[in-house]
Amino acid sequence: MINEQNCSMLCDFYQLTMGNGYYKTEYAQRIAYFDMFFRRVPDGGGYAICAGLEQVVEYINNLRFTDEDIEFLRGKNIFEEGFLEYLRNFKFTGDIWAIPEGTPVFPHEPIITVRAPAIQAQLIETMVLLLVNHQSLIATKASRIVQAADGRAVSEFGSRRAQGASGAVLGARAAYIAGCAGTACVLADELYGVPATGTMAHSWVQMFDTELEAFEEYCRTYPNSTTLLVDTYNVLKSGVPNAIKAFDNVLKPLGARPKGIRLDSGDIAYLSIEARKMLDEAGYPDCKIVASNSLDEYIITDLLRQGARIDIFGVGERLITAKSEPVFGGVYKLVATERDGKITPKIKISENVEKITNPHFKKPYRLFDNETGKAAADLLCVWDEEIDESKPLTIFDPHFTWKKKTLTDFTAKPLQVPVFINGEQVYQLPAIEDIRTYCADQLDMLWDQIKRFDNPHSYYVDLSWKLWDIKHDLLESKGGER
Amino acid sequence: MINEQNCSMLCDFYQLTMGNGYYKTEYAQRIAYFDMFFRRVPDGGGYAICAGLEQVVEYINNLRFTDEDIEFLRGKNIFEEGFLEYLRNFKFTGDIWAIPEGTPVFPHEPIITVRAPAIQAQLIETMVLLLVNHQSLIATKASRIVQAADGRAVSEFGSRRAQGASGAVLGARAAYIAGCAGTACVLADELYGVPATGTMAHSWVQMFDTELEAFEEYCRTYPNSTTLLVDTYNVLKSGVPNAIKAFDNVLKPLGARPKGIRLDSGDIAYLSIEARKMLDEAGYPDCKIVASNSLDEYIITDLLRQGARIDIFGVGERLITAKSEPVFGGVYKLVATERDGKITPKIKISENVEKITNPHFKKPYRLFDNETGKAAADLLCVWDEEIDESKPLTIFDPHFTWKKKTLTDFTAKPLQVPVFINGEQVYQLPAIEDIRTYCADQLDMLWDQIKRFDNPHSYYVDLSWKLWDIKHDLLESKGGER
Repeated sequence: MINEQNCSMLCDFYQLTMGNGYYKTEYAQRIAYFDMFFRRVPDGGGYAICAGLEQVVEYINNLRFTDEDIEFLRGKNIFEEGFLEYLRNFKFTGDIWAIPEGTPVFPHEPIITVRAPAIQAQLIETMVLLLVNHQSLIATKASRIVQAADGRAVSEFGSRRAQGASGAVLGARAAYIAGCAGTACVLADELYGVPATGTMAHSWVQMFDTELEAFEEYCRTYPNSTTLLVDTYNVLKSGVPNAIKAFDNVLKPLGARPKGIRLDSGDIAYLSIEARKMLDEAGYPDCKIVASNSLDEYIITDLLRQGARIDIFGVGERLITAKSEPVFGGVYKLVATERDGKITPKIKISENVEKITNPHFKKPYRLFDNETGKAAADLLCVWDEEIDESKPLTIFDPHFTWKKKTLTDFTAKPLQVPVFINGEQVYQLPAIEDIRTYCADQLDMLWDQIKRFDNPHSYYVDLSWKLWDIKHDLLESKGGER
Repeated sequence: MINEQNCSMLCDFYQLTMGNGYYKTEYAQRIAYFDMFFRRVPDGGGYAICAGLEQVVEYINNLRFTDEDIEFLRGKNIFEEGFLEYLRNFKFTGDIWAIPEGTPVFPHEPIITVRAPAIQAQLIETMVLLLVNHQSLIATKASRIVQAADGRAVSEFGSRRAQGASGAVLGARAAYIAGCAGTACVLADELYGVPATGTMAHSWVQMFDTELEAFEEYCRTYPNSTTLLVDTYNVLKSGVPNAIKAFDNVLKPLGARPKGIRLDSGDIAYLSIEARKMLDEAGYPDCKIVASNSLDEYIITDLLRQGARIDIFGVGERLITAKSEPVFGGVYKLVATERDGKITPKIKISENVEKITNPHFKKPYRLFDNETGKAAADLLCVWDEEIDESKPLTIFDPHFTWKKKTLTDFTAKPLQVPVFINGEQVYQLPAIEDIRTYCADQLDMLWDQIKRFDNPHSYYVDLSWKLWDIKHDLLESKGGER
């Protein structure tokens, strides 16, 4: 099974064949700069939430190869003994900068930048991508669902449909960062502090001879945290009436109040409205209604539009797999090399203009309008550029350069923080609650039109004049035929 | 991070609240039977491939709670000390039957049946579902892609886009079972014996001053296993000509032959046809062409229809996430309880007829036509029913019972094997190569019309008369209102 140790071997085979190839050449110690970035937001959305950095840090700190790993690789009969010895003593010695978890991010800006000897920078490609792609995917989807719930709680319920154990547990973590209230997954609570809750399955109700008996036993066991699942037989004819009977018979004499009922099938809008009436009439206006069953941001929006009386949404498979678009297409591209302190920008050409990379070792900034507090644009600068906030700053569309905008009263905040310098962790990982709060605060700084589900306004990710010039010189020199 | 030990805590919180609820009652030791089954094949396909049983066996064998787990649960302040003590000494003591990995499976038949005291049977729900849902999802998708490749090799390339580390590694395992030739994921090879291969990324080409230099260096390093990535700049004007030069300059003098070139962007059909001509004319007709870039069963079918000259398909995100439908909707439902040796069938009613469960402790058979060797139908019987192969057997549609078919010369094979009896593993896990061969053999026994991508013929999953009667008596007694 996968664990801390053997994740070092979770790489693509070509990272090792390339590493072995570099090993014998002068390129072994050539410094390479790689950017991890993505090209489009899933679901046609206007923003993504980045997540997974904590796991990247753990991975880098645990990166080493065991004797069994070396023996396994030796058995492939294509690796030099010297390279295997290099792996046996492997330690990451490079630098990593990253945008903190929970930050809204946009296409074409570097979420993570790695500066390291080529073999090292290449070796970590798969895990950096896997960890950040996965959690950013789920955080982005969760952010949409939380937005749709419009202030009501969203609980993550999807472990059983997750794509593997880490999909379940880290998915729950990412969903929490993006604003979910909790999870059903106990391990996500134990490992990452995502509050886990849950009450009963249909099997509890089926196990007893009658639904009422099942409900009463549950009320006796958890008088202060009773949520009853009311759809095993018939919600309005059996489930809700029996729930009210159980509340009356067991909780009332104890002076306890029920916490909720849960609907898991049928016409949730209609059933919740009727159940709400029945609960109110029976004297339980404080009893919450939880709804689950194939929910996502669109269905939740629709339910609320139809007047559904739901207090808590339990969202399963469509959140934990980001079902509507289950891939976050982050890539990891060489952007520069360095020899004797001199940095040479590199570019990847493509027939598809969207796939051309932004070259060079960069420093991304977020520009905030001081009057509104809202984010106006992100600006990718060359690593050693500084932005002078005391002067007006004219930014421009990198494709249609005559489209300009001048900012006067603004604040420029660097988006990335240093995470590793010379292989040493220099970034203090924030507590999950702090990441969650930070995420909500950062989202508040985006204009609503960026956060629309369909056809959102495109947030600007621009290049400084200096970077734009470098990119265009490279494009001219590499040429390109239509 | 997740590992063997803490996966015991990868359950839904309600499994623990229900367990604690049962603990104090007579239901604690009541025997429960649960079926794991699914309701529809993803992508509207006609069959699924089940996988993940090996990981279920490992999970059950490792199922225990640490002192830290108990301490964590105690902190929730809702669990009885007696129940926590029960968990501390937890050992699975039940029985598990399962359909072997690599078997084609169909909706509504039990892939896994669990018989155990209610607390135990309930506790393992999430992991059993997660493990079997995930790998069955990927195996099913991979089977379609392998079918589309029509005898050409398919290699799994998707780790970087997988939903978590176990998504990558176990996904590669499932893809291999279903017929993929290998993976790019090194850890899937080390842990599960899925052959890993790989050559170079665009970064290798970018790192050198010229493409030719990059290719020549690679040929020098791997003269006997050279596959060159030819789309970094321009496939036909630069990539393929430089590849041929590198083969001529470096391999030819050594008497070595190139293994292949890889296309990763652009119009793969056109480029592969042109590249094939260039390679053939240069004297490299044995040099294979590998294609990657957002492939799936539909695009592969289209490429081949357009005459693409591709020998190996590298399939990434659309396989490892089953992008077109990333959820395998397996459920785990109570089907019977047992007290003093008497088994009582249980049913879950639903307004949606497709969601009504098949009750009771069952024995599923696959009926093979002896003349053709093909599978004719699956038949769900009551656990103690035997099928007499010497007599004609009339099977019928469980919804439209007048639709009948009589089998005369047939063989009835039980689909499930015993995996655990009284908590002890009694099933010898097969080697992955054997599972892969078995899967291919079993697929051969399905008629082609079942394997069509769109609108496949529905394979029959029928009930014996005895089981049908039991189900209908339960439906009548529980009633149901329209």
